[in-house]
Amino acid sequence: MQNLLQKQIFPALQSDWLKAPHDGALLAEGLAFTTDSYVVSPLEFPGGDIGSLAVFGTVNDLAMCGARPRWLSLALILEEGLPLEQLQRILHSIQQAAGRCQVEIVTGDTKTVERGKGDGLFITTTGLGTLLSTPPPHPSRIQTGDAILINGDLGRHGLAVLAQRQKLELEGPLFSDCAPVHAEVEALLQAGIELRCLRDPTRGGVASVLHELAQASGLSFQLEETCLPLHEEVQAVCEILGFDPLYLANEGKFLAFVPAPQAEAALQILKHFNSEAAQIGAVTQASPTPTVNLKSPWGTTRTLDLLSGEQLPRIC
Amino acid sequence: MQNLLQKQIFPALQSDWLKAPHDGALLAEGLAFTTDSYVVSPLEFPGGDIGSLAVFGTVNDLAMCGARPRWLSLALILEEGLPLEQLQRILHSIQQAAGRCQVEIVTGDTKTVERGKGDGLFITTTGLGTLLSTPPPHPSRIQTGDAILINGDLGRHGLAVLAQRQKLELEGPLFSDCAPVHAEVEALLQAGIELRCLRDPTRGGVASVLHELAQASGLSFQLEETCLPLHEEVQAVCEILGFDPLYLANEGKFLAFVPAPQAEAALQILKHFNSEAAQIGAVTQASPTPTVNLKSPWGTTRTLDLLSGEQLPRIC
Repeated sequence: MQNLLQKQIFPALQSDWLKAPHDGALLAEGLAFTTDSYVVSPLEFPGGDIGSLAVFGTVNDLAMCGARPRWLSLALILEEGLPLEQLQRILHSIQQAAGRCQVEIVTGDTKTVERGKGDGLFITTTGLGTLLSTPPPHPSRIQTGDAILINGDLGRHGLAVLAQRQKLELEGPLFSDCAPVHAEVEALLQAGIELRCLRDPTRGGVASVLHELAQASGLSFQLEETCLPLHEEVQAVCEILGFDPLYLANEGKFLAFVPAPQAEAALQILKHFNSEAAQIGAVTQASPTPTVNLKSPWGTTRTLDLLSGEQLPRIC
Repeated sequence: MQNLLQKQIFPALQSDWLKAPHDGALLAEGLAFTTDSYVVSPLEFPGGDIGSLAVFGTVNDLAMCGARPRWLSLALILEEGLPLEQLQRILHSIQQAAGRCQVEIVTGDTKTVERGKGDGLFITTTGLGTLLSTPPPHPSRIQTGDAILINGDLGRHGLAVLAQRQKLELEGPLFSDCAPVHAEVEALLQAGIELRCLRDPTRGGVASVLHELAQASGLSFQLEETCLPLHEEVQAVCEILGFDPLYLANEGKFLAFVPAPQAEAALQILKHFNSEAAQIGAVTQASPTPTVNLKSPWGTTRTLDLLSGEQLPRIC
C-alpha cells in the first residue's frame, strides 16, 4: 500500500497536499478536512460495526488535526442482497455514533452495485471540523525530549475483527476499542497542554504510525515495553497466534507528543477518561537515522521496523 | 432507490439536512459541501472515465449550490487485479480534470479489497466550495413564469456508457458529455442573472430531476418537445432501442430556472459556451397537483412521470 501510494497515486495526482504526513488537510480558512473509505470485513464485530467505525474514524482524524469535528458526509455503496435488517442496524449505529460525537451528517449519497461486485457495504465518510489550536499539531513540531502518551490499551480492534472473521473461539470476550477521542483532545487543549503531534494508530498499529512519524520528524523514539497498556486477553491471543500488539490496529486510541514538563498533567487528564492511559516512551536524537526502539523488561532494545506486508487486511 | 432513501436511510439517520431536495449541504459558514460515490461500469467510456466523472460530478454539484468549487477529497476502493496501467490512466484523468476546474485535491484515502469483492475501482469524491450568491439557488425559490434553460444537448452520457457496456456497434461515435459547468454558473451570476434554482440532470435525466423539483416547489413545468436540444445520433439510438432521451443521464449539463425577463440574457451567456443551449420550458401553476408536461410538435401534451425502475444502472 505504501508503495502504491508513493510510487503510483501521489505522483500521478501531482498534489503537494497529499505529500503531507497527515490524516487530513488544514485549509487556510481554519478548517480541517479528511476522508476515509471503510471496507471492514465482517460488517459487524464485537464492539462495533462499519457504521460506528466510519463515524468515529473520521471524527478521530479531525481530532488528530487539532480540530473540533462538526459536519460529516456519508456515501454508501450497497451490494445487492445486503439484508435490509442489517442495513438498518448499521444506519442506526451511524446515527447513534454521530449523536455521541455531536457531529451532523449534512449530505450523502447512495449507490448500489450488483451481487458479486461489492461486499455488502462500503462506506466513505468525509469530515469537516474547525481548528482549535494554533499552530495545529504536526509531525514537524515534535522535539527531542517530548513525552509520548497513549490514551489506553493496545490492539483490541485488530484482534476483535480477526476473531470475528476467522470465527476464533476465545475464552473471554474480545471487544473492539472503536470509540471517539475528540473529547480527550479538547480536554488536553483546554488545560493548556501543548499538543505537538497527534496520531491515531489504526492500520499498522502503534509501531507503523511511530515509524512514519520518526521519518517525518527526523527524530528517534524510545518506547518502554513495560509501559505498554495491554489487556490480558490481547496478550494471550497475541502469544498463541504470534501477533505483535504493537502492529495491531486500534480504533479509539491516539498517541500524543507533549513537552516533557507537561507529561504528567496531560496523563492525569487522559486517565480521567481511561485509567489505562500511559506514557509509553520519549523522543530522542536520531542516531544516525530516525528509528523506533523498544526497550524490553530485561534491558535489551529492538528496533521496530515497518512490516512489508499488511498484517491484517480489511480491518477498517 | 427513491424508496430505499425515503423509507430506510433518511428516517434511520434522523438528519433534517438530508431531507433537503439538494445536491449538497449549505453550511452556515458560507460553504457548500457535497459527496458522491462513483461506481460507473465500465471504468472507461468514450468521452470520459470514472476519474473525470468523479471530479466533474462533484464540481458540478457544488456549482448547482451556487458555489465556487475549491477543495476535493478523493477516496479510492481498488479491487485486487485492477491493471496498474488502467489505474494510472484514471489517476492522470483525475489530475487533469482537477486542473481544468482549478480545484485542489487536498486529502485522500486508498483501500483495497480482494478480487471478487469490488469491481475494479470505486471512487468517492467530496467537495467544498465557497458560496457565490445569496440567497443560493433553491427549489423553494422557483416561481410561476420562470424560464427553464438547459446548457446543451441531452442524453449523451447515458447512451455512451450503455453503448460501451453492451458493445453496441454504432455508425458514428457517441461521446459522453462529461464536463464541468461551474464556469457557466459563474458567468451567469457575474452578469447579474438571478439563478432561482439549478440542477444537474444526471441519474434519471431531465424528466426525473424536473419531477423532483416540481414536487419540491409545488409548481408544474411545461416543456416544449421541439425545443429539446438533441444530437442526431442520440435521437437515432433512442428510436432504435426505445429509450426516451428525457430519462437518459447527462454529465455536463444543468437546468437553470431564471426569471422570464432575464431568460434571453441568460441564454446568450450559455450559448457563448455551447451554441445548443436552449430554453426548454417554463414554470406554470400546479393544477391541481405539481406535474411535468411535455408539449409535442403536434400540440398534444403528455405528463412525464417518474420511472419506477432504474433505466440504466451504474451510469455514474
